[in-house]
Order: sequence, then structure tokens, then C-alpha cells
Amino acid sequence: MSDCIFCKIIKGEIPSTGVYRDEQVTAFRDINPAAPTHVLIVPNAHAADLAELDPDTGAHLFRVAQQLAAAVRQSGVQCEGVNLWLADGEAAFQDVFHVHLHVIPRYANDGFDLVLSPAYYIKPERAELDEIAKKIRRVTAD
Amino acid sequence: MSDCIFCKIIKGEIPSTGVYRDEQVTAFRDINPAAPTHVLIVPNAHAADLAELDPDTGAHLFRVAQQLAAAVRQSGVQCEGVNLWLADGEAAFQDVFHVHLHVIPRYANDGFDLVLSPAYYIKPERAELDEIAKKIRRVTAD
Repeated sequence: MSDCIFCKIIKGEIPSTGVYRDEQVTAFRDINPAAPTHVLIVPNAHAADLAELDPDTGAHLFRVAQQLAAAVRQSGVQCEGVNLWLADGEAAFQDVFHVHLHVIPRYANDGFDLVLSPAYYIKPERAELDEIAKKIRRVTAD
Repeated sequence: MSDCIFCKIIKGEIPSTGVYRDEQVTAFRDINPAAPTHVLIVPNAHAADLAELDPDTGAHLFRVAQQLAAAVRQSGVQCEGVNLWLADGEAAFQDVFHVHLHVIPRYANDGFDLVLSPAYYIKPERAELDEIAKKIRRVTAD
């Protein structure tokens, strides 16, 4: 993808601060960090979203995320916890359409927070949970 | 872990609404959803956090998340996007100390949001990015 910013970073056409690289994925510092030491892990082969992502590469993204989470905790930078975050689709706040898994080191009172949907405060009925689960299972069983 | 709520769900000792199960992981509806159709995927073998999680199981968690994201999009429930979220450690908002990967279906204006750290608004200097990346690489190279 000639106009994809992450493809350009992978090819070295624009500068980045790399933290990890192998045949399948590349990890670099997020230049607009949501928290200090925020890292992105991206597949080397362009995939716009989860639907386009090779599942083996997806599994490897998580492996590397787990390694980097451990590495950040041991690196001496301020880190008392880690969030993994992936946004798939514009409604989920995906900004760059090249899959990227965020590794967000955290510490108490770092200013990062989640605003939960009003649905969070409504405990759903078991029947409603079951009905929706049935719809999902119908698809996974295909 | 006899007092772990997710271990109890896996063993069927407390009710849950399952959406997927295999030898390594179990997925069920979150009873306190952050968004409609919020699903959790957990390893069947107790692991409190990423440091305790078997890497093959972690990779498989992501594989199943990718499958469930696709399934939810095709299931007919309202879903225009999907977030994956994992909280590792109390500072990162981990509440149940049995690893769980959240699959959060999203749609425009669903009320879910992120509050970003003030650091988000400060574009870090390249030298600072490089210095921190060096610390992380030092650990991954071990």
C-alpha cells in the first residue's frame, strides 16, 4: 500500500523508533502516545483490518505483545500495568487502516481512562445474554 | 484456583452465557458489558496475568478473538467495529486476576470512549523516543 503510513514505517521510508522486528511483525513507539512508552505492533504485510489479517500473523502479534509487555515492565520505565488495545473499524476508533495492536504501559493516576457505555450500568437479563450468544454461536458454528 | 470467578465459570460452577469453547480457551458474555454484546475470552488454565500466561495459549486467545470479532459482525447484532482490550495489572484496570481478553463490539455514538493521558497531547522528541526504545530493546535482546 503505497500511501499507508505504517507500510512506509516498515519500509523505512519515514522515521520511527523501532523496538522490535521479525519476519512477521514490526513494533515501534507511537508518536502520539496515549500513555508514556506507548508501543504499536503491526504486521509487516499490509492488512487493513482484522478481516484481512492472516490468523497466524494475528496470533504472532499477541505473542510479541506479551513479550513487549514483559520487556517494558523490566526496562526501568514507569510501568505498573499494561493495556493491550486494538481498534477494528472507524466506529471502534481505528485511525490508520493497517492493523495495529497497542501496548500501553500504565501506572496509577496516569490520566488514562475508559468511559463506559450506559449499557455498562444495566445488568442484562440472562435471557437477553442467551439470545445474543445464540446469534454469535450460530456464526462460529458455520 | 478455587476462589477465582472465571475458573468457576469454566468449571460450570456458576452460570454464564457461553459463546465459544475449545481445549485452551473459553469465551462468554460479560455480565457487566462495557458495550452491547461484550464478550470475554479466558484461558481454561488459570493464569493471573500476562506474566503467568502460556505464550501458545496467549496466541490462541488472539486467534479466537479474531474469529469472534468476525462472528459478531456477521451475527446480526449491532456492530460497526470491534475493540480488543486486555488489562494486565491493577494500574491497567485489571479487576479479575485470571487473564481475559475483551471483545467489545462497537457502533457510532455507543457511549464508549477513551480518555487519553495528557502525554497524548505532547509530541515527544525523537531523542526521548529513542532513549526509551533503547531500554526496551535492551530487555528483548536478553
